[in-house]
Amino acid sequence: MSDDLRIAVAGLGVVGAGTLALLAEHAALLQQRCGRRIVVRAISARNRERDRGVDVSDMAWYDDAAAMAREADVDVVVELIGGEDGPAKAVCEAALTAGRHVVSANKAMLAHHGGGLARLAEDAGVGLFYEAAVAGGIPVVKALREGLAGNRIERLYGILNGTCNYILTAMRDSGRRFDDVLAEAQKLGYAEADPSTDVDGIDTAHKLALLASLAFGTDVDFASVYVEGIRHISPLDIVFSDELGYRIKLLGVARMSEGGLEQRVHPCMVPKDSPIAHVSGVFNALVASGDYVDDTVYEGRGAGAGPTASAVVADLVDIARGCRTPTFGVPAAALVKAQPVAMNRHRGAYYIRLMVKDQPGVIADLAAAFGNEQVSIESLLQHGQSPTEAVPVVLTTHQTEEDRMQRAMAVIGDIEAVVEAPRLIRIEAL
Amino acid sequence: MSDDLRIAVAGLGVVGAGTLALLAEHAALLQQRCGRRIVVRAISARNRERDRGVDVSDMAWYDDAAAMAREADVDVVVELIGGEDGPAKAVCEAALTAGRHVVSANKAMLAHHGGGLARLAEDAGVGLFYEAAVAGGIPVVKALREGLAGNRIERLYGILNGTCNYILTAMRDSGRRFDDVLAEAQKLGYAEADPSTDVDGIDTAHKLALLASLAFGTDVDFASVYVEGIRHISPLDIVFSDELGYRIKLLGVARMSEGGLEQRVHPCMVPKDSPIAHVSGVFNALVASGDYVDDTVYEGRGAGAGPTASAVVADLVDIARGCRTPTFGVPAAALVKAQPVAMNRHRGAYYIRLMVKDQPGVIADLAAAFGNEQVSIESLLQHGQSPTEAVPVVLTTHQTEEDRMQRAMAVIGDIEAVVEAPRLIRIEAL
Repeated sequence: MSDDLRIAVAGLGVVGAGTLALLAEHAALLQQRCGRRIVVRAISARNRERDRGVDVSDMAWYDDAAAMAREADVDVVVELIGGEDGPAKAVCEAALTAGRHVVSANKAMLAHHGGGLARLAEDAGVGLFYEAAVAGGIPVVKALREGLAGNRIERLYGILNGTCNYILTAMRDSGRRFDDVLAEAQKLGYAEADPSTDVDGIDTAHKLALLASLAFGTDVDFASVYVEGIRHISPLDIVFSDELGYRIKLLGVARMSEGGLEQRVHPCMVPKDSPIAHVSGVFNALVASGDYVDDTVYEGRGAGAGPTASAVVADLVDIARGCRTPTFGVPAAALVKAQPVAMNRHRGAYYIRLMVKDQPGVIADLAAAFGNEQVSIESLLQHGQSPTEAVPVVLTTHQTEEDRMQRAMAVIGDIEAVVEAPRLIRIEAL
Repeated sequence: MSDDLRIAVAGLGVVGAGTLALLAEHAALLQQRCGRRIVVRAISARNRERDRGVDVSDMAWYDDAAAMAREADVDVVVELIGGEDGPAKAVCEAALTAGRHVVSANKAMLAHHGGGLARLAEDAGVGLFYEAAVAGGIPVVKALREGLAGNRIERLYGILNGTCNYILTAMRDSGRRFDDVLAEAQKLGYAEADPSTDVDGIDTAHKLALLASLAFGTDVDFASVYVEGIRHISPLDIVFSDELGYRIKLLGVARMSEGGLEQRVHPCMVPKDSPIAHVSGVFNALVASGDYVDDTVYEGRGAGAGPTASAVVADLVDIARGCRTPTFGVPAAALVKAQPVAMNRHRGAYYIRLMVKDQPGVIADLAAAFGNEQVSIESLLQHGQSPTEAVPVVLTTHQTEEDRMQRAMAVIGDIEAVVEAPRLIRIEAL
């Protein structure tokens, strides 16, 4: 059939193999839904010999993925290699330049080079799709690009990294420390050997930068995302957050206002009755608010072979059906360079935990440090008393500015009775 | 500009006026997102004189909406008249026959005539879109038709009627009776003067029939939906459900299995920790499960001018961008006539509440009635004791079949000590 949608797949790891399996298992269903077949014509991976549980005998093999992207007789190249630069980027550039659509799950690459690749795609008259790059199988890219296209998007926030949410959930359920839970997550395959991209918030920041571009029609600006991970969250903080009526979640938050574009990734205390508070384990969730639609919530599995393959194939179905949409919702030339809002201008409420030697005058010193910065204290909790050991003191503040808080924290960190670095977690009004 | 997407709007109630307002306010944004303008060329409504807060001087007025659908020089007709038959259907048929796309928010019409209208659209080579007919501004039609298109959908369920969810939420929060809360909801504009379409589950059934067709590739089969509303839910049931760890929600549930297509709308007890248990007030939510993606959840406002206009315009954006998808996910000719699973073959757990005169032997009679049908009792609660007044007895069962339950209930209803009709609420495993 000359009308088949012919595709090449670069990268046959878990997601690549899952995509081939899905396309094989649901070939008839997809043909019915698309009005044509989706046929894998070429593949490329590091190891030709490995058994991936799928019959690949009809597919042309390429050792060089970029050569495949250039030369194979296909309509679409699916990039599942990963990595910010290198082979993945070479494959996408080769494919787009050769006039082939690209479907990619590569958030790191798109966060760094999305604007350039979108322009390349547009110049070649083809599409660049990346549903699989954000929130796994949940169709959030489609929701922002199409489902909410009648709205000016005002704000979005989400739990975009399953590893972090798994760790925070397990810490809460078990009372264990970050390091213990991370080690367990690594054993279970929920965290990588080098977990820093996940637990330091970088992966969330990649995804947030893509969603912000799509939602606000701005250039992808990963460099301006404020990023803070979850390594410093302690079991004590989790206990106190519970007592205060919150759950701790690593959120990505993006908001467009007159002051510019705010993009930040950090642990947040969210009210227990907010929709996002109930999202547990490896699940992801996104809340997007539009001026006509108000809040909409999307939830599901944010990673794994099945969900990610589902997202890759959704993009292929769009291409097969002839749906073309601009990469970031508007033509690349129309993407605006937004003024970033610096993190020190952030306004919000704060939770601070200090380990304090219980001696006279400490609370007065703390109060003075906040008072001097006009930070207004909402609550103060001190659990336990000990003549010898430091005890935790927890404060929450009313709305204030980040730079005031940071100056107050610096002063507090120097108080002699404060024996550990003060801990700060932002409270998010949702 | 000859490349404008020209539309006609039939029906200028709350949603119609909201749609015109959105199109006017976001004209520039939409032009950027679509690559062309969306221009309202013609309108029709009952009352020409009413001020709808939007400048309509550039739009041609038609007293006869069907004539407008036939004659106006437009690409799309937006049907916002409502009603299962009559003018709404005439408008859609006229528009499709004349080769114009149709965007409709009319679930009643589509639930009854969706298959025929889809065939008419296909014959004319145009699209029939209805994102606004289900779950307001939440893009659930798009999610099922496109975002999850790589999956065989196994099950979906949802809270699809904001009025019922508002009433059940208010009953739980206040302890008041159904009638009181309904009267209040009518005053607040959350329920209609004639509330039966909402509170008797019919509106939910309309939406469920559409979602099931889309998810499973089956003919819309509203007639086979089992429908039961919320009028019989009492404050007592809400108290007991809470004690048992459940919330009561009116759900629409559809499942495709080897036995056929199950479609049912009735009050359900859902576990408090299930995602849908937290959906309160007028909010809607849908859970759709695919074989690759697993559970995905969509939540937001299910009604109102803004959210519904958002959905209408999302469909217009798809049309403007040139995206064409089959009305129910596959070509109308490929829609399968599914074998309906009769409600008496339903399997599940049950909650039963009886008002019983506290006299010796009653519990033995109840146990016998269930035992004779091989229904296994999981728990039995009896609160209070009274020599003179009837007291509530609550039972929950293990998984059993609906017809066994109904036979047992008939026997129990005839026990002399049982003084009111027994109440049955199904417990839903989510």
